[in-house]
Amino acid sequence: MAVIGCGLIGSSVIRAAREAGVVGEVAVADLSEAHRKRIVELGYADTVTGDVAEAVAGADLVVFAVPVLAMGEAARAAAGALKPGATVTDVGSVKGSVAEALSEALSADSVFIVPGHPIAGTEHSGPEAGFAELFQNRWVILTPEAREDAAYLEAVDRLAEFWRALGANVERMDTGHHDLVLAVTSHLPHLIAYNIVGTAADMEQVTRAEVMKYSAGGFRDFTRIAASDPTMWRDVFVANREAVLEILGRFTEDLQALSRAIRWGEADKLYDLFSRTREIRRGIIAAGQESPEPNFGRDRGKH
Amino acid sequence: MAVIGCGLIGSSVIRAAREAGVVGEVAVADLSEAHRKRIVELGYADTVTGDVAEAVAGADLVVFAVPVLAMGEAARAAAGALKPGATVTDVGSVKGSVAEALSEALSADSVFIVPGHPIAGTEHSGPEAGFAELFQNRWVILTPEAREDAAYLEAVDRLAEFWRALGANVERMDTGHHDLVLAVTSHLPHLIAYNIVGTAADMEQVTRAEVMKYSAGGFRDFTRIAASDPTMWRDVFVANREAVLEILGRFTEDLQALSRAIRWGEADKLYDLFSRTREIRRGIIAAGQESPEPNFGRDRGKH
Repeated sequence: MAVIGCGLIGSSVIRAAREAGVVGEVAVADLSEAHRKRIVELGYADTVTGDVAEAVAGADLVVFAVPVLAMGEAARAAAGALKPGATVTDVGSVKGSVAEALSEALSADSVFIVPGHPIAGTEHSGPEAGFAELFQNRWVILTPEAREDAAYLEAVDRLAEFWRALGANVERMDTGHHDLVLAVTSHLPHLIAYNIVGTAADMEQVTRAEVMKYSAGGFRDFTRIAASDPTMWRDVFVANREAVLEILGRFTEDLQALSRAIRWGEADKLYDLFSRTREIRRGIIAAGQESPEPNFGRDRGKH
Repeated sequence: MAVIGCGLIGSSVIRAAREAGVVGEVAVADLSEAHRKRIVELGYADTVTGDVAEAVAGADLVVFAVPVLAMGEAARAAAGALKPGATVTDVGSVKGSVAEALSEALSADSVFIVPGHPIAGTEHSGPEAGFAELFQNRWVILTPEAREDAAYLEAVDRLAEFWRALGANVERMDTGHHDLVLAVTSHLPHLIAYNIVGTAADMEQVTRAEVMKYSAGGFRDFTRIAASDPTMWRDVFVANREAVLEILGRFTEDLQALSRAIRWGEADKLYDLFSRTREIRRGIIAAGQESPEPNFGRDRGKH
């Protein structure tokens, strides 16, 4: 296996695959010298290089785990060195633009391109942030190309099997639907979180010290995802612009209606919204995607 | 001590005060028969009644822990039965309207009115949701009246001491500043969380099942505070309308600028915002108001 880009997700893929015993040799390419040094120290890869072509040579599975706007360049660097019959996938949070970049850079005649996206992560970044259990009970969405040949379908199945071995559930979807669903469940939440943290930081009448001190009233929850990797997220919003702006338009409409209900003291409208949102959380907990403990379990040490 | 309204906060005050050994007899008044039954079963109060006057009779400290718009009525029900020289406080999330309601209902000649607000909670509600450690290392804001007489100042000090015994840090503030600070650190975050969960639930192109399934991409974080008590939060937005609408205006302006940056692909602007928001989280963790663990520690069991 070759992993191109070894941050939180890339390093977690390697650790999880090692733990599951589903990989032999692992080669890593990373552009950052500091990352490469850490990866060598951490000792989870057999080859560590700054050269993408060197890393992918001979690999049966190539995982691109770089920011989404860097996928095209990474794929072009790999193109000449890929082993015929290799499966090429990625872990990008946007699938339309990445699928396009991969298919432009690579020859579908010699390799199997199967874009993918594990819905898992933390707010930490870098090669030491990964852990083997990150994908356990999380969903991985594959967005295969519109190919029906048996060899390709087998490659898709093998990749799905790989992710299942890492503890994940696998779903297939077309790229457009993926990008819309993720705009709702991931991209808009990040945008809103970044925005509210920015707004709070820029108030004149309320100091930053006050914002931090009294953040347990709710604000601190937003700061977690607003601490995510800035390069990764800059790329997501550029690459999934249309779906994000569409969902953001809906959010803004709803917020204006809510603002109007507050202005006019429409208490019943507020109560109705605040009651029905509880159900969604119950559903998420029932779906095994969230801790049932109060406060995400962050107070566990206190009890 | 008399506690009027025994939900998450009221029951936590009792449990924490018992554990700290700073209360003798505890009387509870709660309008809900189901609550009263649970409180009797849980056994942390000496008297459990539906009658506010009965609960406050003889109490040295009276804590109103009902939704903010119910404070006035609860105070009026208590007025005739309060022990002269008693300290009366509350735990409401809005201080301007509550301070007004308490001072209208009660005679400042015979009792000491010291409004207060512990910045602590979980998304759970009711008399069984409370726990003794809830206030540990959290902040309690007191908004004393503009009185300088020694007896009043002593009552304020005693109340501060009470909260410190429960593990909290205590700060004093005027009501207006409190309501603005909390609009930023608590009310706006709740409004935004309720709104985004509502928007996601109402999408036609994305099903609720999909929203739940792929919520680990960030959305699930918002559902925690959007699962908070609807009555409490309805009252907060009605009672703190002006400050909330002011802060919401700032948030919306910033969001429009961000939306424009996405539309025009202004990658540097996005990167700049996404980088500086990280600092705020570091500050919150350094201030002891947040878990330093990735994902709030919710994955702790997985490692």
